[in-house]
Amino acid sequence: MFLMRIGAPGAEKPAVRAGETDYVDVSDLVTDFDEEFFGTDGPARIAGPVADRIAAGDVRLIGDQRIGAPIARPHQILCIGLNYSDHAAETGQAVPDEPILFTKSPNTLVGPNDDVRIPRGSTKTDWEVELGIVIGKRTSYLGSVEEAAASIAGYVLVNDVSERAFQMERGGQWVKGKSAETFNPAGPWLATPDEIPDVRDLAMWLDVNGVRRQTGNTKTMIFDPYFVVHYLSQFLVLEPGDLINTGTPPGVGLGLKPPAYLQPGDVMTLGIELLGSARQQVVGPR
Amino acid sequence: MFLMRIGAPGAEKPAVRAGETDYVDVSDLVTDFDEEFFGTDGPARIAGPVADRIAAGDVRLIGDQRIGAPIARPHQILCIGLNYSDHAAETGQAVPDEPILFTKSPNTLVGPNDDVRIPRGSTKTDWEVELGIVIGKRTSYLGSVEEAAASIAGYVLVNDVSERAFQMERGGQWVKGKSAETFNPAGPWLATPDEIPDVRDLAMWLDVNGVRRQTGNTKTMIFDPYFVVHYLSQFLVLEPGDLINTGTPPGVGLGLKPPAYLQPGDVMTLGIELLGSARQQVVGPR
Repeated sequence: MFLMRIGAPGAEKPAVRAGETDYVDVSDLVTDFDEEFFGTDGPARIAGPVADRIAAGDVRLIGDQRIGAPIARPHQILCIGLNYSDHAAETGQAVPDEPILFTKSPNTLVGPNDDVRIPRGSTKTDWEVELGIVIGKRTSYLGSVEEAAASIAGYVLVNDVSERAFQMERGGQWVKGKSAETFNPAGPWLATPDEIPDVRDLAMWLDVNGVRRQTGNTKTMIFDPYFVVHYLSQFLVLEPGDLINTGTPPGVGLGLKPPAYLQPGDVMTLGIELLGSARQQVVGPR
Repeated sequence: MFLMRIGAPGAEKPAVRAGETDYVDVSDLVTDFDEEFFGTDGPARIAGPVADRIAAGDVRLIGDQRIGAPIARPHQILCIGLNYSDHAAETGQAVPDEPILFTKSPNTLVGPNDDVRIPRGSTKTDWEVELGIVIGKRTSYLGSVEEAAASIAGYVLVNDVSERAFQMERGGQWVKGKSAETFNPAGPWLATPDEIPDVRDLAMWLDVNGVRRQTGNTKTMIFDPYFVVHYLSQFLVLEPGDLINTGTPPGVGLGLKPPAYLQPGDVMTLGIELLGSARQQVVGPR
């Protein structure tokens, strides 16, 4: 299944994608794709009714309705830093021995086609196409990497928008440059694991104003999604619906010679194989 | 008012302290001390009914009931690092030019007298008595430090428990050593600002097994609570009910010569003037 949330900001209704143009409304079955939903085997619970509705032709047009992030605001957004060896090199940092963990404020989550707002005082707002993992159950101290798959509810396209001066020139910890409002577009959909033959081989890309900036593939990740989930579970408790951004491939603005950053009016388009594409217009500070 | 949450973990009922031994039950007035409560002027809304109930003698004994954290699991727990100049010195780090921000997983929040569990693989679990700020309304881009007071719902005693090896020897970002389960005891109560004559002059202390380890006062904070709230609002959006741990005074285990860390069976007792005291037994990994 491909889970979606459709509707105005704060009033999105849960839905399941049914082909390129249609969706099944499931708002009578679940209140939202949130911690309670993922923590109670929600995807398995709605699979039957969704199949029945598609068979019965009970679908609706997506049309020009707004698409929200495919999950409700999570308990936490965890991020892995420098998880592609080429990206570590372009930022001038060593390939890490183990995953680097940082966080974003959960209220940074917005829809895949919503505006990205440059924060006040920003000079270095940057892009990062990433594979996002959504957690499917409360997870702590996994005994092996193999057990991690059972903790994953699905995968989502995200843009881990970053302000490099706030991140690296304002006191040492990265969260300060990762948490401005609108800094985590996600979607258009969450793909359940059965829809993804091999999460370790998904092509990904990001353009700014139609110019290709990032080209990558999850096969060059240093720590793959199963490793990451197992690893994090040794340090903290993952809750259902938690989002993990798994790092970005080369081609961010910080890595260009000379570096180049986002300006109001710029348009980012990005995508990951099987996870759809997104388009974000950059707007100035409010 | 002094807000409390009383009852078993996950089933705490909102209450208001009425003297040393009693409380007023307000669970018929509010569902919880959460984002919705703080975001809708909840404290002002219950003040009248609470006063009426105290006047009528409609109070109950706290007795040996469990006390939970005085707020529900927040949207985010933000932490300020090295915010007391003496503490920066004892850890061998420079006094920061501006606040250092890091985060803890929100599900680390537990009650003031709950057990603190040493994580698996830990060798350096440490204590940090801190003043916690609870946010009272959605806050972004405050225009001045003076405006910050209106965004503060109250103050709370917290223990920012830390695993120093995970924090500083496992990849560079601190969150990894701050987010193990039980790592954020808070309470026994949230004091609304009107109960605190000067938040910039509160004595604080922490003992381990009856030996005084930390002695401090908020007057030696480098960045005071108003400065911190104003500062953070320039980088991210604070939500009602968010918790900000404002840093610890000298005397953590990391700063002892030689360093000394927590062991199963140890007991931490800690307190802040007007914010009550807490007692946490240290237990081994599960």
